Order: sequence, then structure tokens, then C-alpha cells
Amino acid sequence: MKSGLSFLIAALRCEIDELDQLARTSALVGTIGRLVHALQRERGLSNVLLASAGRRFAAERGEQIADGRKFEDIVRAGFEQLEADAHRIGNGARLFSRIAWVLPGLDALPHLRGRIGQLGMQPADATTAFVKLIAGLLAVVFEAADGATDPEISRLLVAMFNFMQGKEFAGQERACGAAAFTSGLNDSARQQQWLHLIESQERCFHVFVEFSGPGLAAQWQTNLPPAQTAELERLRRIACAAPAGVPLNPELSPTWFDCSSRRIDGMQVVEERLAADLRKLCESKIAQARSELAAHEALLAQLTAEGRSTATAFFDTPAADAVPPLNAKAPYGRQLERSILEMVQEQSQRLQAMSDELDTVRATLNERKLVERAKGLLMAHRQLSEEEAHKMLRQTAMNQNRRVVDVAESVLSMAEYLPRGTST
Amino acid sequence: MKSGLSFLIAALRCEIDELDQLARTSALVGTIGRLVHALQRERGLSNVLLASAGRRFAAERGEQIADGRKFEDIVRAGFEQLEADAHRIGNGARLFSRIAWVLPGLDALPHLRGRIGQLGMQPADATTAFVKLIAGLLAVVFEAADGATDPEISRLLVAMFNFMQGKEFAGQERACGAAAFTSGLNDSARQQQWLHLIESQERCFHVFVEFSGPGLAAQWQTNLPPAQTAELERLRRIACAAPAGVPLNPELSPTWFDCSSRRIDGMQVVEERLAADLRKLCESKIAQARSELAAHEALLAQLTAEGRSTATAFFDTPAADAVPPLNAKAPYGRQLERSILEMVQEQSQRLQAMSDELDTVRATLNERKLVERAKGLLMAHRQLSEEEAHKMLRQTAMNQNRRVVDVAESVLSMAEYLPRGTST
Repeated sequence: MKSGLSFLIAALRCEIDELDQLARTSALVGTIGRLVHALQRERGLSNVLLASAGRRFAAERGEQIADGRKFEDIVRAGFEQLEADAHRIGNGARLFSRIAWVLPGLDALPHLRGRIGQLGMQPADATTAFVKLIAGLLAVVFEAADGATDPEISRLLVAMFNFMQGKEFAGQERACGAAAFTSGLNDSARQQQWLHLIESQERCFHVFVEFSGPGLAAQWQTNLPPAQTAELERLRRIACAAPAGVPLNPELSPTWFDCSSRRIDGMQVVEERLAADLRKLCESKIAQARSELAAHEALLAQLTAEGRSTATAFFDTPAADAVPPLNAKAPYGRQLERSILEMVQEQSQRLQAMSDELDTVRATLNERKLVERAKGLLMAHRQLSEEEAHKMLRQTAMNQNRRVVDVAESVLSMAEYLPRGTST
Repeated sequence: MKSGLSFLIAALRCEIDELDQLARTSALVGTIGRLVHALQRERGLSNVLLASAGRRFAAERGEQIADGRKFEDIVRAGFEQLEADAHRIGNGARLFSRIAWVLPGLDALPHLRGRIGQLGMQPADATTAFVKLIAGLLAVVFEAADGATDPEISRLLVAMFNFMQGKEFAGQERACGAAAFTSGLNDSARQQQWLHLIESQERCFHVFVEFSGPGLAAQWQTNLPPAQTAELERLRRIACAAPAGVPLNPELSPTWFDCSSRRIDGMQVVEERLAADLRKLCESKIAQARSELAAHEALLAQLTAEGRSTATAFFDTPAADAVPPLNAKAPYGRQLERSILEMVQEQSQRLQAMSDELDTVRATLNERKLVERAKGLLMAHRQLSEEEAHKMLRQTAMNQNRRVVDVAESVLSMAEYLPRGTST
């Protein structure tokens, strides 16, 4: 017959299992970050290659593709490892569903690369394809953050997701600016999109700073040399503040590409540091939980050896503290029992506090969930594809000068007024 | 190399694992309900035995204890089974921590029964002991409801928890009334406590009706014969509306005990039906998920046999729908790929919708969490035991004519004004 102490130990083992799993998921998030970075660089190079009709970056793109393939293999291996450990994962269903979505994208990558290599598509279409693939990878990171069961680790994963998302907006800004400067064309739709990407980036980095802790936030600041930031802002101003339709100077194109690429590479340094912090945090939490487990197991072994089973302390009233133990042979029996009850109570309160804190951290992920729900609603009611639904939300936000999440909330609150989809 | 479809299947398998685990947890909740019912009856009989100085219910209590031991064995076996399946349980740590808390209570039960059998304690102290043990068992049910990952099952578990909690308040009301009528003493503190128990019951049953669905709610109504309800309300009025201090007629004691016991036994019928519904719901959900899994696995086997790996549909734009497939040998290749992508997208949206609904259902459990947090705060800051902290909250609620949860919220919002505990 198992004792309360056995279940206190079982609870600790569950915590360790969850931490082990979180450590693996966090490591996967780190490798996804590297793959995303490689794909972002490839997207930039592909864009210039297509825009320059094959004259620029052909060799660099080849090297970048080889680099990306390496990280792709690591990420695929990570996915398969997760599947092998499926029974240990809390939100396994959602995580695997996200992976199921993105894998066909990785499968289709060689075909996409082939078309780009043959200059068989427009730069904008190539950008759209990479954006979709990277969004799929970020959705996996999002689920990893949403499914974390430890609030401190969850905080870092939320910081990581927001940093990666912000970096992706920066990558999209690079593509948007490259297209604008290279072609010289700068209409008001492009300007609007550009400003929207700047604003989205800033919101993500704001959450990152809030959740990453002071060390990383400081590194994020020092990692942006003022001269570089000034140059970026100058080019942004030239493009976004100019009257719409006035052509841009194509000679600024390489300057823009270098400047925004250096910025994104700098972000990658911060991201690597964040991934390392995440790894260290997981390790220290696991070590702490393991040492606690060892202490409890030693206590259980001692109690089993001594064959104690007095078991009367549960119904003690506080007044019983004053009563000396009756059994002289085991003078600490009841005292020991009572301290085990206290240990259980402390554990239970700690777990509850963790769960409360987790709810608070996860609440910051709700914005994205609102947007996803609004997209789903639009897809169902207006027979739109996911991309079209997203574009519609973003366009409405830009037109009304509101945040996408606020538009999403309006859409959801008006759900019953939406026309029913005339499904086939 | 695994395909997206493999991970779609992995996601489904996770769902089935979770449903299997939920089915086991739900079955455990059903047996906990029976043990609680037996302990409630034993509490009632013990009370009368002690109040009548051993003259009434000695034989009945003996039979009841034997009955209780039977259910205790089943519940203990259920706990150990859970521990064996620990790696499959989502909120395992919290669930085991609750079990760790209640097991020493079950261990201490023989000692408690011995003291009652020797008439060695006051009826009020015996009641307090049973209340504490039953609260520990209900906390296990609470965690089971809080950790459920399927919103429909979660709804029924929330209904179950609230029904069990309401029934426990009814049991406490029986004890409170039995003590009042048997002794004839009816002071204003007792009246206040009694009214508080009535109100707490009604709140629980309200949540039960909201979450259990129309069939069970109707049975709950028909299960309360009007004549019996009228008799209960008459006795409540006599005791609670009388001027405080006016002695009650002890001859009403058996009437009260029979009337409130019949009511509680009637509740047990509803609870059994709820447990059966829960079982059926789990079974049908598992069957549905399994048949979906079989369909997907058949598709995967077919694709593997045909060796398809075209993998280009991911980057298709909606316009590509109009383009006929190029490869005449596999005319449905791209179409099939696209329908797998649609399946993944549907799965992902379904999982997200489930997760959103789950958050809504779980929100109803927050009241209890607020009370637990406020108790923890009072215990830490004022060096109180859990019982004292709970009593303090309840007393404040009664004095201020507010709900306990509202007092708990006030306590939490004033946390920083509370004096620091002068710990040893």
C-alpha cells in the first residue's frame, strides 16, 4: 500500500519528466531559430537574384542553401525525436499538428529552389513562399511556448517566440525595402505595408524585453550600434516619408540590403544567447528537482526500513502540538508524520502558484490566438484561404490605423452578423 | 523521413492517449464519489452515535464502515494505477500532490474510527475530521476536472465536482442540523453557519445544472419529490428563522436526520448517473478518434505503397487550382497533397477551438483557486493552519454577508497591506 510520501515523490517525478521534455522542446526551438535564420538569408538572396535577373548573389545563394539544408536535417531529426517521446508531451496533439503543417513546406522547398534558380518566378512570389514556410516554423515555436508547464521556462519561450517573430518582421521589411529600392517603385500600398512591418516588429521586441530578463534586454540594446540604427532609420525615412509614387534611387538598394542584413545578423546573436539561457535554465531546474527527489526518496527508504505506519497526525488539531508523543519507542513518529504533511502542503501550494503564474504568462500569447480565431472565422464565413483571411485582417488594420489584434477582436465580437459561407 | 501525414497521425494518437487517460481518471472520480458517499453516511451515523452516548446507530455504523472500507480499497487501487500511468497524465504533479495529501487521511481513518467507537471524542470534532478527509478527496476530483484536455469531458467533470461539493455541503448541513436538533441548542453562530451551507449548496448545484446538460438537470429536478423538499424547508425554517437561543425540539432530530439523509441518498442516484454519462462520453470520444486514426493510417499506408513524394502543393496559390496537373501518371497527386494540407489545417483549427473552449470551462474553476490562494496567503502572513485560514474567510463572508470568493478576492488584492508573518 503506497503512502502519501510515495505520491509526493510521484508528483516530483512528473515535474522532472515535464522539465526533461521542456529541455528537449527548448533545444528544438533553438535549432528552429537557426533554420529560420538560414531561410531568411536565403529569402533575401533569392529576392536580389530574381530582381537582378540572376546577376547578383548566385554563388552566395548556393552556399546559403547548403547551410539551410544542414539545419533542416537537424530540425527534422528533432521533430522525429519528439514523436518518439510523444507520450511525455503535454500539448502533443497541437504541437504535432503544427509540425504536420510545416513538413510539407520543407518537402516542397527543393521544388521552390529549383524554380528560383531558373529565374522562373517573381521576387514577390518567392518572398510569399518563404514567408509562409517561416510562419509554419514559428507556429511550432508558438505551441512549444504555449504548452510549457514551468512558468520561468514559459517566460523565456514567450520571449523567444516574440523575438523570432520580430526578427521575421525585420526580414520581411528587408525584402519589402529591397523590392522598393531595387525597382525604384514606391507606391502608397508598399509604404503602408512597410510602416506596418516596423510597428509589428516593435511590438514583438517590446514583449521580448518584458519577458527575457534584464541581461538579455541590455544585450539587445548594446547589439544595435547607434550608427547602424541611424542609417536604417534614414533609409526608412527616405522610403516611407517620401510622397507616394516618387521613384527611389536604386543605388541605395545595396546600402539597404547590407544595413538591414547586418541588423538581422545582430539579432541572431541575441537569439543564440536567448537559446543558451533557455538551455541553462532548463538544466538548473532539472538539477534542483532531481536533488529534491533524491532527498525525498532517501526519506521514504528510511521510513520503509523503520516500518513506521502510525498514521494519526492527519486529524490532529493545532492543540495537539502541545501533547507529548505517547509512544516512547518512536518519539519523533508523529512529528515526522506532521512534517511530511507540511511538505505535501508546501508542494501543493508551490504547484498552484506555478500554475497561476503560468496562466499569466500564457495570457500574453492570447493576442495571437485571437488573430488565429478571427482568421478561422473569416475562412469559414467568407470562403477565404488562410493567406487571404490574414491579408484582409491586416489590410483592415492598416486602413483603420488599428492593431491587427484589435481588428481580430472586432471580427470575433461581430461573429453572428457575418454572412454564412455559401459552401459548395 | 516522416511526412506531414505521419505527424497528423501522431497528433491523433496523442489525443487518443489523453482520452484514454481521461477515461481512467473519470472512472476514478466515480469511485471517489462512492467513497465520499460512504464517508458522509458514516459521519452522520458517528455523529448520532456520539450525541446519543452510544445508544443509537452502533450496528448501522459498523455496516457502514465495512462498506466504506470496500470503496477505500477501490480508490487506493485507482490511485496506484494512476501512478503506474504517471507519464501519460497532463497535470500529474498537481494530481499526485493532492493524492499525497489525502492518503495519510485514509491511513489515519482506523484510529479515528477507534476513538469514535470508544465514544472518546465530541460529535463536532468527529465531524471536523470527516469534513477534512472528504475535502481532501474532493481536491483530487478538482484536479482531475482542472487537468482534463477535452472540453466536453471537462464540462462533465466540472459538473461532477460541483455536484459532489454541493452534496458535501448538504452532508455538512445534515450534521449541523443533527447537532442542533439533538442537543436542542441553536445559537446564532450555528444559524449563520447553517444558512451559509444552504447558500453554498445552491451555488454548486447551479453550476452543476449549467454544465451537466438538460437530461441530468431534469433528473436532478425530478429526483427531489416536492413533499420531501417541503419537509426539509419546514425544518430549515424552524431552526434558522427562530429567534437565536430558543431551544429546538429534540423530537424533531430523527425527522431531520431521515429527511436530509433521503435527500443525500437521492443525490447519490444523480451522481451515479453523471458518472455513467461521463464514462459513455469518454467511450464514444475514444471510438470516434480511433476510427479517424484508422482512416488516416490507411491513407498513409496507401501513400507509402504508391511511393508518392511530389510535395509541391504547399506553396500553391489559390490560382493554381485552375491549372491541370502536369503529371498524367499520377493525376490526383497534387490534389491529394492539397487535401492532406486541408486535413491538417482542419485538425489544427479543431484543436485550437477545443483549447479555447477548455479555457472557458476551466475559468469556472477559478473561484475555488482564488479561495485556495487567499487561504495560502493568510496561512503565510498570519501563521494560521489551513482550517483556521478557511474559517477566517468563511467567518468574514458570513459577517459581511458576502460570498467567500469575494472575500478571497479582497484578501488577495490587499496582499501587500497584510502584516508579514513573524515566522519562528
